[in-house]
Amino acid sequence: MRLRAETASDGVTERLFTVGDAPGAVWAPEGAAGPRPLVLLGHGGGGHKTAPPIVARARGYVTGHGFAVAALDAPGWGGRPVPAEFEPFNAEIDELEAAGKPLGDVFARRGVVAASLAIPEWRAAIDALTALDWIGAGQPIGYWGVSLGCAIGLPLVAAEPRIRAAVLGLMGHKTLAEVAAQLTVPVEFVLQWDDELVPRASGLALFDAIGSATKTLHANPGRHADVPAFEVDSSERFFARHLLG
Amino acid sequence: MRLRAETASDGVTERLFTVGDAPGAVWAPEGAAGPRPLVLLGHGGGGHKTAPPIVARARGYVTGHGFAVAALDAPGWGGRPVPAEFEPFNAEIDELEAAGKPLGDVFARRGVVAASLAIPEWRAAIDALTALDWIGAGQPIGYWGVSLGCAIGLPLVAAEPRIRAAVLGLMGHKTLAEVAAQLTVPVEFVLQWDDELVPRASGLALFDAIGSATKTLHANPGRHADVPAFEVDSSERFFARHLLG
Repeated sequence: MRLRAETASDGVTERLFTVGDAPGAVWAPEGAAGPRPLVLLGHGGGGHKTAPPIVARARGYVTGHGFAVAALDAPGWGGRPVPAEFEPFNAEIDELEAAGKPLGDVFARRGVVAASLAIPEWRAAIDALTALDWIGAGQPIGYWGVSLGCAIGLPLVAAEPRIRAAVLGLMGHKTLAEVAAQLTVPVEFVLQWDDELVPRASGLALFDAIGSATKTLHANPGRHADVPAFEVDSSERFFARHLLG
Repeated sequence: MRLRAETASDGVTERLFTVGDAPGAVWAPEGAAGPRPLVLLGHGGGGHKTAPPIVARARGYVTGHGFAVAALDAPGWGGRPVPAEFEPFNAEIDELEAAGKPLGDVFARRGVVAASLAIPEWRAAIDALTALDWIGAGQPIGYWGVSLGCAIGLPLVAAEPRIRAAVLGLMGHKTLAEVAAQLTVPVEFVLQWDDELVPRASGLALFDAIGSATKTLHANPGRHADVPAFEVDSSERFFARHLLG
């Protein structure tokens, strides 16, 4: 892990880092010392590790509960080179866009490939981050990610026992049902009632498929990108409920 | 309105009252003076105005945000005489129970009659409560009620412009879809994923039918009575969002 110099504002530090090829950012309370729970943020398609909604969410989690928060650029986003594995999907996306056809299905299929590339990067980042003395290895970890962040995060959470709670959503049943059944940790699942990329029935079916005994569905009217701001606060309370003692 | 003597514990006052034939209870911060938002609580079937979960919810709303909170016994519950209008439904319930058949449908149909009796009582109670100088007439009002409390509350909220936000749920589409379309205020709708009284599709269809632009669905695994405790906190934040300035 290469950790860059920290910057601080309004009581929150931000440090950029790289783990292998993956650029990341980690936020913590200014002067943080000693172990604390870590929340991982998986950005959506078109986003990146320091996109404004990611930074705002990270700062809120830090100031609200003293969590450490980390984000990674997913393979192919945030200025990272587009993986060769994405090329057939991206060609299909170009064709569908030109024809004015829906993109949700190909986004979900590309997400499966993105997950296969991103999961080892996230696990290396967890190793490196939990080695820092102001995060520590014994604390519970949470994961937040919707849309692409769910396509990557859902199988990550299933594979990674250090992650104890997850906020997921804005993805459908087709590519994720099998791995969803393997989840055991508490899940808050976000669904947009009028999602133009994920059919309502597919999103509801994915929530239904999640194996966790503790899971809660939050559905709101509006399109894919219109998740209301109060769901940020709700996710923070969810992590407080499940990551703090 | 006949208001009985107040009792107080842990900073919360409780006063029993009657408005017409309806027995009620109202809670407020000890020493409350001046206007404050009012939250109305509609108990479920088998409950009453001072059932332990109602009192706990009321006390939480009072201590959390300084709200006044009021509950009424619904017609036929809390020791009130069973209305003659309930008799055919109650006979049907006895037959279905003896046959081990599901009761959700008859509960919903009896709820329509309960609402027609309860709505004038609630409106009279609002008149009386908002005349108290420690509640006042100019403040927004919220309504919480699920199951029977939704059967009564959903048409009450549609009819009563003083109610500005509502938490509803645990009821289905069949008897309430038409009036749900008339709702305009923010709604948080609670649904149990494995509800033995309300089929999942019927609950989802009722959420879909709600006309309000701002509505949010909270679905959790489990049976009708198994709504998780964290939904109490969520409802409190919902009322804080919509009733406080």
